[in-house]
This record gives sequence, structure tokens and C-alpha cells, in this order.
Amino acid sequence: MGSFPNLRIRLPLVAFLLELLMIILFGVFVRYDDESDASKPDDLTGKSTFLYRYPSFQDVHVMVFMGFGFLMTFLQRYGFSAVGFNFLVASFSLQWATLMQGWFHHFQDGKILVGVESLINADFCTASVLIAFGAVLGRTSPVQLLIMAFFQVTLFSVNEYILLNLLEVIDAGGSMTIHCFGGFFGLAVSRVLYRPGLKEPHRKASSVYHSDLFAMIGTLFLWIYWPSFNSAISEKGVNQTRAVINTYYTLASCTVTTCILSSLVDKSGRINMVHLQNSTLAGAVAVGTAAEMMLTPYGSLIVGLILGTLSTLGYTFITPALEKYLHVQDTCGIHNLHALPGFCGGIIGAITAAAASEATYGSRLHHTFPSLDKHPGRSLGGFQMAGAVVSLGMGLVGGTIVGIILKFPIWGATTDEDCYEDRAYWEVPEEEVTYIHTVTRNEHVKEENTVYEMEPQSPAD
Amino acid sequence: MGSFPNLRIRLPLVAFLLELLMIILFGVFVRYDDESDASKPDDLTGKSTFLYRYPSFQDVHVMVFMGFGFLMTFLQRYGFSAVGFNFLVASFSLQWATLMQGWFHHFQDGKILVGVESLINADFCTASVLIAFGAVLGRTSPVQLLIMAFFQVTLFSVNEYILLNLLEVIDAGGSMTIHCFGGFFGLAVSRVLYRPGLKEPHRKASSVYHSDLFAMIGTLFLWIYWPSFNSAISEKGVNQTRAVINTYYTLASCTVTTCILSSLVDKSGRINMVHLQNSTLAGAVAVGTAAEMMLTPYGSLIVGLILGTLSTLGYTFITPALEKYLHVQDTCGIHNLHALPGFCGGIIGAITAAAASEATYGSRLHHTFPSLDKHPGRSLGGFQMAGAVVSLGMGLVGGTIVGIILKFPIWGATTDEDCYEDRAYWEVPEEEVTYIHTVTRNEHVKEENTVYEMEPQSPAD
Amino acid sequence: MGSFPNLRIRLPLVAFLLELLMIILFGVFVRYDDESDASKPDDLTGKSTFLYRYPSFQDVHVMVFMGFGFLMTFLQRYGFSAVGFNFLVASFSLQWATLMQGWFHHFQDGKILVGVESLINADFCTASVLIAFGAVLGRTSPVQLLIMAFFQVTLFSVNEYILLNLLEVIDAGGSMTIHCFGGFFGLAVSRVLYRPGLKEPHRKASSVYHSDLFAMIGTLFLWIYWPSFNSAISEKGVNQTRAVINTYYTLASCTVTTCILSSLVDKSGRINMVHLQNSTLAGAVAVGTAAEMMLTPYGSLIVGLILGTLSTLGYTFITPALEKYLHVQDTCGIHNLHALPGFCGGIIGAITAAAASEATYGSRLHHTFPSLDKHPGRSLGGFQMAGAVVSLGMGLVGGTIVGIILKFPIWGATTDEDCYEDRAYWEVPEEEVTYIHTVTRNEHVKEENTVYEMEPQSPAD
Repeated sequence: MGSFPNLRIRLPLVAFLLELLMIILFGVFVRYDDESDASKPDDLTGKSTFLYRYPSFQDVHVMVFMGFGFLMTFLQRYGFSAVGFNFLVASFSLQWATLMQGWFHHFQDGKILVGVESLINADFCTASVLIAFGAVLGRTSPVQLLIMAFFQVTLFSVNEYILLNLLEVIDAGGSMTIHCFGGFFGLAVSRVLYRPGLKEPHRKASSVYHSDLFAMIGTLFLWIYWPSFNSAISEKGVNQTRAVINTYYTLASCTVTTCILSSLVDKSGRINMVHLQNSTLAGAVAVGTAAEMMLTPYGSLIVGLILGTLSTLGYTFITPALEKYLHVQDTCGIHNLHALPGFCGGIIGAITAAAASEATYGSRLHHTFPSLDKHPGRSLGGFQMAGAVVSLGMGLVGGTIVGIILKFPIWGATTDEDCYEDRAYWEVPEEEVTYIHTVTRNEHVKEENTVYEMEPQSPAD
Repeated sequence: MGSFPNLRIRLPLVAFLLELLMIILFGVFVRYDDESDASKPDDLTGKSTFLYRYPSFQDVHVMVFMGFGFLMTFLQRYGFSAVGFNFLVASFSLQWATLMQGWFHHFQDGKILVGVESLINADFCTASVLIAFGAVLGRTSPVQLLIMAFFQVTLFSVNEYILLNLLEVIDAGGSMTIHCFGGFFGLAVSRVLYRPGLKEPHRKASSVYHSDLFAMIGTLFLWIYWPSFNSAISEKGVNQTRAVINTYYTLASCTVTTCILSSLVDKSGRINMVHLQNSTLAGAVAVGTAAEMMLTPYGSLIVGLILGTLSTLGYTFITPALEKYLHVQDTCGIHNLHALPGFCGGIIGAITAAAASEATYGSRLHHTFPSLDKHPGRSLGGFQMAGAVVSLGMGLVGGTIVGIILKFPIWGATTDEDCYEDRAYWEVPEEEVTYIHTVTRNEHVKEENTVYEMEPQSPAD
Repeated sequence: MGSFPNLRIRLPLVAFLLELLMIILFGVFVRYDDESDASKPDDLTGKSTFLYRYPSFQDVHVMVFMGFGFLMTFLQRYGFSAVGFNFLVASFSLQWATLMQGWFHHFQDGKILVGVESLINADFCTASVLIAFGAVLGRTSPVQLLIMAFFQVTLFSVNEYILLNLLEVIDAGGSMTIHCFGGFFGLAVSRVLYRPGLKEPHRKASSVYHSDLFAMIGTLFLWIYWPSFNSAISEKGVNQTRAVINTYYTLASCTVTTCILSSLVDKSGRINMVHLQNSTLAGAVAVGTAAEMMLTPYGSLIVGLILGTLSTLGYTFITPALEKYLHVQDTCGIHNLHALPGFCGGIIGAITAAAASEATYGSRLHHTFPSLDKHPGRSLGGFQMAGAVVSLGMGLVGGTIVGIILKFPIWGATTDEDCYEDRAYWEVPEEEVTYIHTVTRNEHVKEENTVYEMEPQSPAD
């Protein structure tokens, strides 16, 4: 199993080297910006970045740590890993994202200047890593996840630089940079790490009653705070407000539509919790780029209707097909929640940008599309579309390369036997657990009770 | 069972028609207001609506989707429905509320102009529907809930118009418009839909250990964010701040009082989770109208003391009596959390308004009670009291009519057997579930284990 | 068991007398401040306290009621008490804190004037009580907790007055006043209330799978909102923003380090949920004092690295030793999350203050350290260090005295048998519960199933 004997050496060693690297690079590069340096005057006006950005930052922060973490707790015996690895990987990623994004966007006189917006952007980049985590959930070791995060944050920042600085597209809610890139990146990684030994549906890769309720906590916080996500770095004022409104209505329509479709595809008309947990959010992903444009409220409802439909059908038909024909295992179905909706978001943004005119935006058209200042008359829609395609390509190519790196035998890959199981990585309280699953529709297989042979969990243990 | 064969057709059809209606009406009527339209200048001053309202909106949004949803998960096998139907019904209601409230309050040149305050108001109206849902929790199909929401939002808006525009009362926290109306509406609906086959206490209509903890998540988010609820649309500045302070202290006192009373009414002095989950919130409901008035901090503590007492006693004595004598089944006890406290809130508001004078409010009396501008010397208390009575009447009459509509056999009513059970409407993971309940105080009946004959829940299913 | 017959009289009587006292004292003393009094003009500028403080207040409020409450639900059968007593004790404490802090800091013309900052400070003081609760979790009656809260809030306010007004130190995030004081106070109380009958590890003092997930909800909300905690009462502007940034990076580094250490100290390299739930937060405690200083982002990462290490090792080595050698039982390990990190925070603050110079702070040095106005050239570091020592001493001495008061036989102490059990204080739903624990590493003892002989929990019960 490679040169390192076991997890006890691998995980601390890799994590410590990464953290040490962060401290050194922060020491060399990271300083406070003008709105957080003690020697600078306080900005106590209605223009203060803190006033417009801090509440949104906190909402995004809840989404990243609580939302993504709990959304993935639906697996019956992988809740500690879902929440815990999400916590570990996100905590590392936001440090590395501060540096990578800083070098690309906030580098002045050899220093990276950080402020509230840096925190939001770092959280955004981290979200992209957590999306990819959703594809391989249950089948990777924490060491592999940290390595993946290191490379993905790097590629994210390159892709973001290409879109925002070279193509000069706008993508405040990150449909393209976060979701499309992160989603396809994760799918590509999962393709390379394909485990034929884990046939779908794997008995442990399913939920139990309470794990589905825990997952709903994640879903609801993502859903509730997504208007903040899509507006957090929009231009202060009317654009930020409009991004909130559009996301709010998109989500409402997407949720109703998800229930419609979920009921339609079930032979008894029941709703599937997988759809409710995930497809209800697809609209917000897809409106990320266009939310700050003049999408109109009814346009938002239509986006929700389309995405709720696509995402639910994706869970029903595309995810099984991806595994069967392309050998892409996708535990959380990120294809239907992030990859596809993210790409759709690029298209929707391109269409809305292409339709932008002075008739709608008045003399403030350049205010929403600043690239017009330098390039008057450019094809806004064309460049936006290019951004979506680049993100998709960067995700697929980058994910494939990083997947190959993750196959190196030094990262302590999880065995098939330990997949979807907390006990390989966590001290799990002893309890009787009964796994029940269906082999065929009407035949139940009840396995023997298992008592884990581990120490009890106690605070002083 | 009516003209439609089953849920698979009824739910998608009704929901799709409603969503389609929303899209068409949004297309015709809904536009951005001046603080969200791209062609309008940014307001980056301390008067920006976004700065005062957006953080409050997000808190209210958490209450509506997370708070109400999880508060109702206390039932042992109805958690998916509690959270899921709450999600579906709220997502539809906020769209319809945008239109109804828009026509009554924000209609200019044939268009409804939406901004951050529209979102708050739509969430408020939605809360009223979710309150009514609490009365019939476990005994209605999702189709019935959507139909109820459609009519209740309509009547809510009419009632709100009568109070705010005709009677010119103030009710920033919605004691009367949201809680009193919504509570009595739900009780009236439940009266019409009375199911004699479900005797109280129904074996499934009780909690298990973890479902009570899930419900506490809902309770706490409601409790924590209620100061934002009661202040979200108060006049910016001192009134908004005072509404926060009054609600904060009312809730603290109400929580202590609830524990006192709960312990008093138990023969062993133990506290009942039902009281802790619900009665702790009754003070905030009852201070909704008066929170922005000069209630004084110690007045707030007294309101909490009274309401914590009334609500706990309500759960102990009134709810069983309502079922026994009036055939009103009330799953969540909304009578004691919303209906009665909401009406009390109207009375408290009337008393506080009647006591308002220039001695306390100075020259800014009209600032808190704008109706004095047009009607100097009017009886503030009398009109406030009229508002409470109208809300109660509208709730009872409206709920009765809508209850009759819901009895039409076309909405796919739940069978008695399927009440308080997720499996009729949700794909539920297979698990062994053991129902235990007490027939008499000291006799336990343990039923056989039940293995649900359903497919496993898996993300790609 | 003393002069009162049982809980049914003791709890309501004590709680009612305390609440009555609050109402009387509020009536005599508490009034609205200039930013919440209806007769005062609205401040709608970028300087409005509401704009800078209210979103932070709500985050702190979530931490106090949701964060602390759920963090303590990790015990398998003490979740109702964890959340419920947290709720009750906090609701009382914030009222008493308003009075005590008001008399010391906001007393004008015989009145205490309250505003948004009063609510934040009351929540801060309450947090200190909840920290102490963590030490004795499972071994105290609610009456004892209320009495403890009464005295601890009093002593907290005295200690706070000594630090802020006499020593003139700064401590915006409360490392010293909240965590160091509260932590050592709780440990001292626990020492006095030592129960030799409850040997560690007690079978019930451990977690089960889902209780660990509930606890993670508490952890994550504390973690996510801690930047608001440490900045909530910092000077508006650059200092508040910097406090956010420093806390954000400290927490990220602390979380990575906790996973490193937790894996290192386990023989199989697995991570322990106790560490993840608690030690990940230790960095934020320790940066409370220094967060608003020019700690630098990389200094923040180093603080996280040190505290993640110390706290994890504390759980592994110090907590068992405290019980064994000093007879200090510490259910939640608050020594490693609050007491020690709080004292470290005092030291870190002292070092950072000692290093403060015009080279770093420019002409605005006095802006961050206002005591320099009155005492130019004073030893900032020395006074800060004195603050930490005073807090530690006040905590130990105060906790010992209050512990002795709590031993009076009139407060209805919990029996050893009922420790770590909800059923003595709560109406618990009947369920089969199987306790499993390990007597030695490889020997499992499975006890008989227990059916609780209590009434079922139903909403109308």
C-alpha cells in the first residue's frame, strides 16, 4: 500500500506539511487591506464594504460548512466523514484559496491584501472543492481529499482568472467558475477512481430515516442562504438587490417543480427525498451568472421550472446511465445539482447578456457589464458562452489529471470494504447497526447485527 | 376517490397548473422596484433599504423554511412530510403572496414592483399558511395543502388590506394578520376536516427521542430570529431597534415561565418537551403588534410571563378540550402558539396604543402611529382592537369555507390509516420501526416490528 | 433531601422568584437608550449602531442558544437536558446580565439604558454561564443551574468591571472575561460537587452515532459565527473587520491542526469526534482578546496551530488526569475548550499588545488601545496579563464558593443514578434503549433493554 505504513502517519504528515506551507506563505504574502488595517481611517458611511458584505459572508459561510457538510450526511453510516471531511477540507481550502486568488487578483507591491471580500471569495473557491467531494463521497481517504483540494483550488483560480480577467465575463454567483467547473472536475476525478467492486446501488450507499432528516438541514440552509451566495460579490446597490430577488424566485419555482417531477417519475406518485434534497437547489446554481442581470422575476420562475425538471430527470435517468455506460460513480449526484445546472447557468447567463440593451439597463448598461468600457459593442453573449465552455473543459481535463495523481498508491486509498463506512477513519460509538437493503423489489435481505469492536466515545477518551 | 386516479396524477397536475399560473401572472405584472432595477442609481447611504432589511429578511427566511419545517418534525414517522410539505407549500405560497400583496399594496401603472420588502412580506404571508398547516399536520394530502395555501394567501391579503389600509392599524410583527388569522383559520379548517377515526392520543401522533431533538432545532431558530421577525418591516431606526429589544426580553421571560408552568402541571415536576418546543415562543407572537411601541422592557417581561403561562396551560387543558368538545384536532397545538397568543397580541397592542401619549413619544408620536396624521385624536386602541376581532372572524369564517372546499373528493384525501405516516407520500428508506405506546398509564403495548415494503432510498434511485 | 419535597415545588418556586425579581428590577431600572426610544430621532447614517451590531448580535444569539445547546447533546440520553437547560438558564441569565452589566456600565440618572449592544453583552455574559454548565453537564439539577447562573452572572460582572474599568484592558472577544473566567469557574464548581460514585468513563456519559451528529450542529454554528462573536463589540470600522479576518483564519488553521493531532494520538490514526466537536473551536477562544489587534493573518494561523494542538492533547491527557488526581469531573472538557484556551488568549493578547507600536498602528494606536489616552506609555502587555490572571483567580475562587452554595441540600441535587439521564427532569417518549459500553478494550457488556415506564409524549399531553 505504498511507502507510508498507515493513516496515522499519512494523514498527520500530509496535513501538517500543507498547514506549514500555508503559514509560511501567509507570513510572506498576506496583509490586511485598507478597510482592516489599524493605521487606516474607519469608513463609517453607507459605502462601507463591511455593511454590504459581512452579512452575506456569514450566510455563505453557513452554506459552506453547515450546508454542504450536512447535505452529505444522508448516507446511513458515513455522517461523521461527510461533516468531518467537509470541515477539514474546507478549512484547508480556504487558506490556500486566499493565497491563489490573492496572487491572481489582489497582489500589490508583493503583498496580498485581504478584507471581507477575500473571505467570501475563499469560501466560494472552497465550495467548488466540496462539490467535487460530493461525487467521490464515501470512496476516498481524507489524505486523497486534501491532495485533491490542493490541486483543485489551484486550477479553480486559473480558470477563474481566464474567465474574469481574460474573457472578462461576469459570474457573480459562480454558475461557471464554481459549479460547472467544480462539478465536472469531480465527475472526472470519480471516473478515474472508478471502483467496479462497488455495484450500484451499494447497500451502504443509501439513507436511513434520520440521516435523510439530517441531510435536509443541509439542504434548507443552502436553499435559504443561496440569495446571499449569488449576490455576495455583486456590485453594491441595485445589482446586489436584484441578484437576491432573482435567486429567491428561482428557488421557489424550482422547489415546486421538483415535487411535480419527483411525483411523476415514481410509479405511486410519491416524492423522493433525494430529489427534494438536491434538485430543489438546481435553480439557484443555474441562475448564478444571470442573477445580477435583468433576468426579470418571471424569467427567474422559468429558470426554476426548467432546472427543477432537468435535475430531477437527471437523478432518475442520467446518474444511473453515467455509472453504467461511462463508469462515473456519483454519490451525491453532483451531475444533476452542480455540473449540468452550472453549465446551464452559463448558457442562461449568455442568453441574458446577449439580450442586454440600453432599453432595459438605461445609461447604466456598463455598470452591470463593465467589459463594455474597454470593448464597446463586444458580443457579451458570445464571451459568456465561451466562459461556460472553458469551465467545462478545465473541469474535465483538470479532474482527469488530478484523478490520476490521486491513484498514486501513497495516499492511503480506502478499500472497497471500507467505502461508505465511518469506522475506517473515525472512532465510532459502539452501537448495534442493522443494515437492510433490497436485492429485488420484493425481497428483503436482513444482515446480521454488527457490534463494532471499538472503544466507546466519551469526551475524556 | 373522485375523478383522478391517484397521487401521481393529482399532485403533479395541481402543482403544475398553479406554477404555470404564477409564471403567467408574474410575466404580466411583476417588475423590479427602484432599488433593484439596473437602470436606477445605487443608493449607497445609511438609508439603503438593503442594509436595514436584508439581514432581517434572511433571518425570517430561516424561520419560515427551517424553523416551521423542523418544529413539525416531532412526529415519529412524519418528518419527511413535515419538512417536505412545509418546503413545497411555502415555495408556492411566497409566489402567490407576491402577487396578492402586490395588487393590494404595490400596484403602480399596472405593475407590481418588488424589492427586499416584498420578499419579507411574502415570507410573512407564507408563515400564516404554515401555521394553519400545523393544525392539520398528518391528516392532509399535499394537494389539499396546496389548495388551502391558494385560498389562504388570498384571504390573508384581503384581511391584511382591511387592517392596514381600511382600519389603518399597525401590526409590524403580525400578531393579528399572521398569527391570529392564520391560527384560527387552521383551527376552522381542522374542524371541518374532523376525523373521528383518529382518537387522541393517536399512537403515531407522538414523538420519539430524536424526533423531539429535531423539533428543537426548529424551535430554537424560531426563538433566536423572532426579534428580526417582529422588527423586519418596522420603521428604520429607533422603532426597528425597539422592536428587537422588546421581543428579545419577552422571549426570555416567556421561556423561564414555560419551564415553571410545565413543571407545575406535571405530577412529578418534570418538563414537557411539547411545552418547551412551543410555549416558549408564544410571547413573541403576542408581542408582534406592540413590539415597536413603547412597551417598555419590563412590560415585555410581563407579556412573556402571561403568555408562557397561558400557552402552557393551553396545551394542558384547552387542546384536549377542543378535540373532545368542539371536534377540533390540532396536531401542533397552534391554538396555544399562534391563535390565542395572536389574539392576545392584538389586545396587548390595543392597550399599548391606547396608552400612547406625547409624554412618552414626544413630538414623534405620529412617527409610530402614522394614522394620526389623517385622523388626529382617533381612538388608537379601539381601532387596534377592531383589527384583532376582524382577524379572528376572517380566520374562522375563511377557514370554514376553505375546509369545505378541501372536503371535495377530488384532492386525494389521506386515509385514516395513512395519517401521521410518511410512506403514503414519500419513498421511505426501509428500516425496522417499533411503535410503542401506552394504553393506560402503566400498561405498555408493544406492537410487532414492521418492515416497510418499499424500495431503498439511494441517491441514484 | 432538604426542606422542599420535590422538583415540582422547587423548580417552579425558585424560577418564579427569580423571574419576579427580574420584572421588579426591570421596572425600576431599565429604559430604552437614545437609539431605541420613540421620542428620539432616527439615525439613518453609516454610523447607526443597528447596522454594525444587529447582524453580529443575531450570530452571537445563534451561538448561545443553538451552538452551546446542541454542542452538549452528544450524550446519548441527555439531549433534552442539554438543549433544554441551556435554553432555560440562558433565558434567565440574559435578564440578570442586563441588570448587572447595566449597573456597572450603563447607569445614568438612576436608569439602565438598553440598546443593541446591551443585548450582545448580555448574551456574552450568558455564554460564560453556559461554559460552566458544560463542566457539570449531567450531574446537576435545573434548580442548581439557576442558582449557579445567578451567582456567576454577578461575579462575571464584577470581574468584567475590574478588567475593563479598573485595569483598563481590552478584551472584545472575551478570552479572559468569558472563557477563562467561565471555564475555571465551572471547573471549580465541578470540583466541589465531585461525585466519586460516577467513575470515568461512565457508561451513560458517552455518545451514540446520531447524538454525535446533533452535537456537530452545535459545533458548526459556533465555528461559523465565531468571527461575529469576536468582532461584535469591537470598534466599528477597521477594528471590527480585522477581528473577523483574524478569527476566520485562526479557526481554519485550528481545525486542520485538530485533525492532525487527533489522528496522531489514536493508535489506528482515526479522528475522534470529541476533538472535532471541541478542539476545532479552541483557536477562536484564544484569539478573542487579540483578534482586534494587529495580530497579522499569519499570526492567526499560528494561534490556531498552537491551540488545536494544546486542546486535542488536553482532551487526551489533561482531562483524565484532572479527574484522577484533582477530582475535577469535566463532562464537556471545558478545560480544553474554554479555560485553558481562554487563559492562553489572555497571554496572546498581552504579547500582541506589548508588541503594539506606532510603526504598525500609525497615529491610530490610541484608537485600538484607548487606555493610552489617560495613561500614555503604560505597559499594555503587563496590564493585559494581569487581566488574565485576575480572571483565572476570580473563576477559581468564585466557582469554589458557588459550588459550596450548590451543595446546600435545598436545591434538589440529582442522584448518582439519575445522572446523565433525561428522565428525572423530562417527560421522555417511551422507546427501547440499549446501552452498550466497554468495560475493557476488548470486552463488551450489553445490558438488557430498558423500557421506560413513562407516559407517551404527545402534543396535547
